[in-house]
Amino acid sequence: MLNTFGTLYRLTSFGESHGSGIGGVIDGCPPGLCLDEAFIQAELDKRKPGSAKAGLAGTTRSEADRIKFLSGVYEGKTTGTPLAFFIENTNQKSQDYSKVAQSYRPGHADRCYDEKFGFRDPRGGGRSSGRETVARVAGGAVAQLYLRQLGIKIFAYPEAIDGIYAEQYGDFDLEHLDGRLFFAPNEGVIPHWQERIEEVRKDLDTLGGVVKIEAHGVPAGLGEPVFQKLDAYLSFALMGVGAVKAVEIGDGLRAAQSRGSVNNDAMQYENGRLTYLSNHAGGIEGGISNGQPIIARAYVKPIPSVAKEQKTVSKNGENIMLSVGGRHDICAIPRIVPVLKAMTAMTLMDMVLLQRRCGFTGRENG
Amino acid sequence: MLNTFGTLYRLTSFGESHGSGIGGVIDGCPPGLCLDEAFIQAELDKRKPGSAKAGLAGTTRSEADRIKFLSGVYEGKTTGTPLAFFIENTNQKSQDYSKVAQSYRPGHADRCYDEKFGFRDPRGGGRSSGRETVARVAGGAVAQLYLRQLGIKIFAYPEAIDGIYAEQYGDFDLEHLDGRLFFAPNEGVIPHWQERIEEVRKDLDTLGGVVKIEAHGVPAGLGEPVFQKLDAYLSFALMGVGAVKAVEIGDGLRAAQSRGSVNNDAMQYENGRLTYLSNHAGGIEGGISNGQPIIARAYVKPIPSVAKEQKTVSKNGENIMLSVGGRHDICAIPRIVPVLKAMTAMTLMDMVLLQRRCGFTGRENG
Amino acid sequence: MLNTFGTLYRLTSFGESHGSGIGGVIDGCPPGLCLDEAFIQAELDKRKPGSAKAGLAGTTRSEADRIKFLSGVYEGKTTGTPLAFFIENTNQKSQDYSKVAQSYRPGHADRCYDEKFGFRDPRGGGRSSGRETVARVAGGAVAQLYLRQLGIKIFAYPEAIDGIYAEQYGDFDLEHLDGRLFFAPNEGVIPHWQERIEEVRKDLDTLGGVVKIEAHGVPAGLGEPVFQKLDAYLSFALMGVGAVKAVEIGDGLRAAQSRGSVNNDAMQYENGRLTYLSNHAGGIEGGISNGQPIIARAYVKPIPSVAKEQKTVSKNGENIMLSVGGRHDICAIPRIVPVLKAMTAMTLMDMVLLQRRCGFTGRENG
Amino acid sequence: MLNTFGTLYRLTSFGESHGSGIGGVIDGCPPGLCLDEAFIQAELDKRKPGSAKAGLAGTTRSEADRIKFLSGVYEGKTTGTPLAFFIENTNQKSQDYSKVAQSYRPGHADRCYDEKFGFRDPRGGGRSSGRETVARVAGGAVAQLYLRQLGIKIFAYPEAIDGIYAEQYGDFDLEHLDGRLFFAPNEGVIPHWQERIEEVRKDLDTLGGVVKIEAHGVPAGLGEPVFQKLDAYLSFALMGVGAVKAVEIGDGLRAAQSRGSVNNDAMQYENGRLTYLSNHAGGIEGGISNGQPIIARAYVKPIPSVAKEQKTVSKNGENIMLSVGGRHDICAIPRIVPVLKAMTAMTLMDMVLLQRRCGFTGRENG
Repeated sequence: MLNTFGTLYRLTSFGESHGSGIGGVIDGCPPGLCLDEAFIQAELDKRKPGSAKAGLAGTTRSEADRIKFLSGVYEGKTTGTPLAFFIENTNQKSQDYSKVAQSYRPGHADRCYDEKFGFRDPRGGGRSSGRETVARVAGGAVAQLYLRQLGIKIFAYPEAIDGIYAEQYGDFDLEHLDGRLFFAPNEGVIPHWQERIEEVRKDLDTLGGVVKIEAHGVPAGLGEPVFQKLDAYLSFALMGVGAVKAVEIGDGLRAAQSRGSVNNDAMQYENGRLTYLSNHAGGIEGGISNGQPIIARAYVKPIPSVAKEQKTVSKNGENIMLSVGGRHDICAIPRIVPVLKAMTAMTLMDMVLLQRRCGFTGRENG
Repeated sequence: MLNTFGTLYRLTSFGESHGSGIGGVIDGCPPGLCLDEAFIQAELDKRKPGSAKAGLAGTTRSEADRIKFLSGVYEGKTTGTPLAFFIENTNQKSQDYSKVAQSYRPGHADRCYDEKFGFRDPRGGGRSSGRETVARVAGGAVAQLYLRQLGIKIFAYPEAIDGIYAEQYGDFDLEHLDGRLFFAPNEGVIPHWQERIEEVRKDLDTLGGVVKIEAHGVPAGLGEPVFQKLDAYLSFALMGVGAVKAVEIGDGLRAAQSRGSVNNDAMQYENGRLTYLSNHAGGIEGGISNGQPIIARAYVKPIPSVAKEQKTVSKNGENIMLSVGGRHDICAIPRIVPVLKAMTAMTLMDMVLLQRRCGFTGRENG
Repeated sequence: MLNTFGTLYRLTSFGESHGSGIGGVIDGCPPGLCLDEAFIQAELDKRKPGSAKAGLAGTTRSEADRIKFLSGVYEGKTTGTPLAFFIENTNQKSQDYSKVAQSYRPGHADRCYDEKFGFRDPRGGGRSSGRETVARVAGGAVAQLYLRQLGIKIFAYPEAIDGIYAEQYGDFDLEHLDGRLFFAPNEGVIPHWQERIEEVRKDLDTLGGVVKIEAHGVPAGLGEPVFQKLDAYLSFALMGVGAVKAVEIGDGLRAAQSRGSVNNDAMQYENGRLTYLSNHAGGIEGGISNGQPIIARAYVKPIPSVAKEQKTVSKNGENIMLSVGGRHDICAIPRIVPVLKAMTAMTLMDMVLLQRRCGFTGRENG
Repeated sequence: MLNTFGTLYRLTSFGESHGSGIGGVIDGCPPGLCLDEAFIQAELDKRKPGSAKAGLAGTTRSEADRIKFLSGVYEGKTTGTPLAFFIENTNQKSQDYSKVAQSYRPGHADRCYDEKFGFRDPRGGGRSSGRETVARVAGGAVAQLYLRQLGIKIFAYPEAIDGIYAEQYGDFDLEHLDGRLFFAPNEGVIPHWQERIEEVRKDLDTLGGVVKIEAHGVPAGLGEPVFQKLDAYLSFALMGVGAVKAVEIGDGLRAAQSRGSVNNDAMQYENGRLTYLSNHAGGIEGGISNGQPIIARAYVKPIPSVAKEQKTVSKNGENIMLSVGGRHDICAIPRIVPVLKAMTAMTLMDMVLLQRRCGFTGRENG
């Protein structure tokens, strides 16, 4: 709880936007995993401010975001003891934060932190900054290394930006997400997203979107029946990423207008193998994975830092107008994509380890 | 984790649909709370099978659902030690489950349990039955008793059934939810919902809907900044209720098509008091409550037990057709309403207790 | 935490001495375990007030202590879902507790509960009563059923009562503990213990002793390196039993006066098998089991309820003299023996399940 | 669990003896605490290898042990977000570990790690090194800063080394522990301890001792009644420190030979204030603090790294003789003293925060 995510695969995150850096401790990673640092760094680079993937959506702040492992690795393999890592903040502009400290940015956590903790670190949003998510990407990358060995692969990509859905512009090709701007699922949608973002930027405003997550190769049997259902835990993981305001599993909200006979995923045996005829459930029934791809979506609000002037208040009781300039993103997408992928990876990793307590591993090993 | 919900206010749930009963242990309830058993029973009665509130949507199975407290109460007050309770299953029909044991009902957890645990209790769905939620309603009712003392009040009601939104049929009046069929937010929508349910029942099918949750009087400062954000935790709580396939906070998915300048909730001081000019955020910013009403929605899929024949498989490898008869609901709404209310109450209760560690209680006491 | 013990094998305990009964919920027991209720009941009977094993040490209160499982079992096997159980209090004398409620018994938790919770249930000590331990015995019995399958067997017996050590009166024979008064490790010591207890009873006083615990067949590799060391966790488990005031592992306090060259357990290969030449460490090195028998001791204080008059105070500020009569034990031994055995079983069970996350099971399976 | 200690005040520790350094993340420290880094560094210096306090008992390895806070502090105050810190290993000798990697040192965790994790980091004991405790001292120092504000003060000192008890050589003076060699409770015992250590060193051997811990000013009401009793949790904390083989609370093992009428701490009112006439219980009754000083003792085994040749085995199956040279301590005392103090501080800190959930703070505020 608090700043730790997970039960058996646990990430404890620390650090602030404009402090010395962001880091984390991964506890519970099984021993003997080859820690492919190039893969981990590549995941971090996807989230990196100023990443080319962001097209025109991103911040101009640039960070090296080089990860350094501080413990838990010996001769390139995890030892089963805590994997700590640190990512230095290299681009902290020395800056006067007294104005930020004295006013509450609309849509931000500024006032809530003051209410919760009595005061706050105003430098770049402190702990509430999106920069904290770099620790999650690292934790998720390590999980992905492990899950890949079990044949589990996670995909994440924008399904829509500002209501422009990619599916209108071509089929999806998940194998080349990393090569495309925005991690887009097809090439066709990219110019439309670019155009819209450019319009909104000129309007001094920001915009949101929808990220779809798919996990392929997940064995049946993951998830705990009652409270810690796989869908509940995944929802917890995804909604815990700032700017996410809704999460759906499988058909999600469309299920609320469907019929039972349609929404149920019928089963049949084909060549001696149990298959499903549809995947409305998004791979989870009764809170437990059924062996089909896990499908989830995260609905992402517009970045609250808008350059337009907004009504707000100062800490000491004045009504003021505030324009939040600086090096901010226009859209949380695509930078939120690797973060959501990471949270999904950590969720599945934890569930894999938890399921092992039962003493049989089901499809995991076969 | 597993069958326990919460960090400091913890409900551990147990029991199966057709075993001796359903129960729970509430650990962490502060001492000295007057345990108003009539209130708790009334909450249970709302969820009860055969409740009049269900209109024609409900099962015909009827259970007394009388709660009995086994511990933790002395002279009508909680002692600070575990509050255990038990609700007997009084209406277990002796019945032949061999058929259920041998086939996998579509949309149910039957196969997933077999994959997870190697075998399962087939009686009425066993642990995966909706009947388990009675323990949650009890846990939530105790939490509500405590929260009411702090001025926190939770409302839950159907916003839509099968796409028929109540707002088309009149303003909402939250003070009389309990007196209306379906806990409907207005009288106007009721006949429309009844008619639709009747149609679907005749069609041997089932349908879903949307439940809206509002928590009023929540102090600012609840929720933990990074992983255990209030919205993330609430999402975990609501998505952990069977049949829920999507959760949104505040404007939720609509936020994904909004603009930052619109979606941000501007602040201003009025008569020396900080107020918000809108509540798109649903009362939560940066994962922390901001003092506005908490707004969430749960999208509920159609009940998977449909009387129509469906393709499915037997455990031993045959393709079969299955009609799930029995005493099943047509629509999880309205019986899911008190369950979602309860999960919200437990979430807030836990966050109230967690926040106290900081050593100051903010608006809670003033 | 609070009233839950364990991480993956979790017992949540509830109930008070003079309420309706004592119960518990075991969460995390793997599915498919044959729930041998006769074995479980036999463990409970060992702890039962008025048990013949207690010789003259025990209370005259008699309870049937019949365990009833409320959930989690189907056709005699655990289902992997919560195992709830309840043991009714059948011998609650209706009695006037106003005197107890108004005075603080020396050596009891009366005043501490008032300080902690603001008030307390005075009936028979409420939650602080030794009667609560019946839930632990049940939780430990289920764990023992599982551990036996892995070849792990736990022994617990008094090593001394009031300074009379059994080793002076013969060799130890652990296979017949259950057949002897006090669960004594030999026959020779029994009359000496009986005599001493009788003397102390006549003196209206109470006495303590030492319980030794041995776990045989524990595979190497259990326990977590840093905080949750096997010895630390076992110490937590044993010290959590009321009346235990010291815990030692292996040579324990004698190690504090030994030399490194003596205290270290030398290793050698014999017939291709690694063996140790001694077991000063009690089977745990660096917090991890080494495959030798786990050895621990619990030092048990005299029962605080003495018939002699003692100085104490009333709740409302008077100095009074109090004699605690009633149906109390003279010595916590032997009734604490099955409780300590149970706590050891739950500790090992939890560690077995935790170790499985590593994905290899070491000696457990061969 | 695993590498995290605590429920609400949580230390997650990481790092190995000969890796880049040792660090930790403190989560749950209340906001607004003045982070007195000089105090924290002073606590670390007490544990530091080569500290003057160690007399002749200590290693000759010298480390700067400079703590660097990486997050959670703003303008000298804790922000309520995670406090991460790092202590660089500055004295890692480049060295050939292949011999260590291939043999199992007696009394060490070498073989157990191999059994648990499949392999291990052999450099200086890796994670099982005493060097890991530096993170605990830091975590405990922050807790002490907080507890001091509440009037809680913790003392730790050797009561005996190798059976030479300090009480034979003078009264105890706890106010000047830091100024004395070994943190001795009086001056008189010091030359006797020095002489014994010197003898043992010449004999190429090592020795153990007893550390006494006292916590003054602890309010009544801390600790949870059943499993997480204050004494159980403290025992968990202390036994989790390497080399500790027994823990006792109050009279501890002597209580096992006492009588109830003697061992009970009688209460009386003096000038309207409840007082105890003795403190056999060590300040804890029924698992809850009673307002008297908390008294605990840890029995510490001799350091297992002895220069004498010992029988042991190589990893590949040979019987060998091994002398563990290097820069090792002769006696864990006095370096273990600040570690045990730190574990006590974190235990009490956690219990203070947990107790706040009850909504009244008892003696804490008055």
